[in-house]
Amino acid sequence: MSNTILLDKRPVGTPELSDFKFTTEEVPALQDGQFLLETKYVSVDPYLRGRMNDAKSYIPPFELHKPIVSGIIAEVLESKNDAFNKGNYVSGMLQWKKQQVSSGKGLMKVDPRMAPLSAYLGVLGLTGLTAYTGLMEIGKPVQGETLVVSGAAGAVGSIVGQIGKILGLRVVGIAGTDEKVNILKSEFGFDEGINYKTTKNMRAAIAAACPDGVDIYFDNVGGSISDAVLFSINRFARLIICGAISMYNDTSMPTGISVQPFLIRNSALMQGFIVSNYEDKFPEAIQKLSGWMKEGKLAYNETIVEGFENIPTAFLDLFSGKNKGKIVVKV
Amino acid sequence: MSNTILLDKRPVGTPELSDFKFTTEEVPALQDGQFLLETKYVSVDPYLRGRMNDAKSYIPPFELHKPIVSGIIAEVLESKNDAFNKGNYVSGMLQWKKQQVSSGKGLMKVDPRMAPLSAYLGVLGLTGLTAYTGLMEIGKPVQGETLVVSGAAGAVGSIVGQIGKILGLRVVGIAGTDEKVNILKSEFGFDEGINYKTTKNMRAAIAAACPDGVDIYFDNVGGSISDAVLFSINRFARLIICGAISMYNDTSMPTGISVQPFLIRNSALMQGFIVSNYEDKFPEAIQKLSGWMKEGKLAYNETIVEGFENIPTAFLDLFSGKNKGKIVVKV
Repeated sequence: MSNTILLDKRPVGTPELSDFKFTTEEVPALQDGQFLLETKYVSVDPYLRGRMNDAKSYIPPFELHKPIVSGIIAEVLESKNDAFNKGNYVSGMLQWKKQQVSSGKGLMKVDPRMAPLSAYLGVLGLTGLTAYTGLMEIGKPVQGETLVVSGAAGAVGSIVGQIGKILGLRVVGIAGTDEKVNILKSEFGFDEGINYKTTKNMRAAIAAACPDGVDIYFDNVGGSISDAVLFSINRFARLIICGAISMYNDTSMPTGISVQPFLIRNSALMQGFIVSNYEDKFPEAIQKLSGWMKEGKLAYNETIVEGFENIPTAFLDLFSGKNKGKIVVKV
Repeated sequence: MSNTILLDKRPVGTPELSDFKFTTEEVPALQDGQFLLETKYVSVDPYLRGRMNDAKSYIPPFELHKPIVSGIIAEVLESKNDAFNKGNYVSGMLQWKKQQVSSGKGLMKVDPRMAPLSAYLGVLGLTGLTAYTGLMEIGKPVQGETLVVSGAAGAVGSIVGQIGKILGLRVVGIAGTDEKVNILKSEFGFDEGINYKTTKNMRAAIAAACPDGVDIYFDNVGGSISDAVLFSINRFARLIICGAISMYNDTSMPTGISVQPFLIRNSALMQGFIVSNYEDKFPEAIQKLSGWMKEGKLAYNETIVEGFENIPTAFLDLFSGKNKGKIVVKV
């Protein structure tokens, strides 16, 4: 039997603990080609909120009363598959279960000697790939340009800003506490940080932090913060729409300033994306990210929450802004 | 002395006749390299409204108490410039004057035997170039895709839709009267037309007219029409932001549905542009457009208003939706 976490109800607005259900499910006997996995680390990510709605999106919604699926690092306990041996570690989209059986589809082996296992959910996983491919493929950064990052102390944002610095950009981060703003500057080398919760006039603060205007905006949050950035964008600005966490729990259609006049006036681009659009760039991205890590240029920030039973709480905490960097649950 | 139209006051909201002033100005004697022009056709365009505000944009604002400038076709009456001879016709950005002196900077000779002179302000001028470059460079149309055009009976929109049909797209146009909707289908070959003024549920109407969803949206209007289109966009949709006429006269910051969640869900692109971004594509565009005209594939629709004194009224009528196709004033 394996401990399992199901989606019990579709959240309305902000998700609650009662939307999840703890249960146990039988672990089937291994067939040829299958192997048994034990979950080690579980990634909780804002985008999972979207899959909890019953709505058309880039990935199908989670089914009710079925296990949630997210990025997981697991160890092979037992194997009837020649490609995955006992003691191997794998990374991939797996169920919120302590143990599960897999045929290896969509899983990638990861090496615990190259980097800490949790890094494969963060800087060397979808988080780092999202930061790298979004910034490079849509942002097309040019040395000397100004990059603004929202959700800058978050998992993706903190990597985006550091890549920006490595590439010679002026980098301004927006975050929600003074502590986070300090970390942006002291740990991640951002040029400026803005605490959107204590700043009365965001439009003026962004303009002041970006004396040459904004060339690239890496947007993780949407909402009024992103509206304020529009007033500072330069001609041919690139607005990378990676996330809109400020809107994910809205129960009515979110509204804001109309972006069209800003895009016309500045011949600016807004592009939404998900990381899987750029799968062909993953090898290049992993190489760059792991190289920068080894050179000590890319610090990475994670919050490790202990215990399988705390997975739903760790997910809920994403929306309170309590945590910094990548949130990973160690089982 | 030359009749001249000045910007007398910066319009607040919808422009009024009293924002313009008719006067006469002296025509200076010709210097070497100069020539005297007599205005034949004047283009009035929605984007001129933006230049009447004192605001940073892609082109500087008009100066108060100075002549308005727009696309004009003029005849050379007298010349001290070897490149421009008496009897030549030129096209370019010129002042709202019956006569003016030029050195030829930014002017292009046009041939009245190749096409009617007014066409050089329309389908073979910035209007046609805007339609072609926006659709091709941002829209990147692929045969079989669905294209929605707003302001579809307008100067740019009617050309965009026809190019779409030539390229094998399903084309749906949005316009503001039943008469315009009929013209879209009968004259311009659109597959479907929607009258946004009589349609109660635009979102449902667009979904019904686009059973395979919307791959390309050529947006001339912005506002609630464009909000409604968002609900039908496909994965990797391209939203070409050419104009936002519904917002140009707003005195407060226009607001609407937040586009970011739609862009993320669909990995969609929104790109603002002005035609001059694609100057390197003009020769190709002119060749294609004039070829299609000769083959009878590209109908073009213009409303010719007679009389220099009617230029401001013709401009004001752009915002009432009274006219169809390109509006040109014949002097």
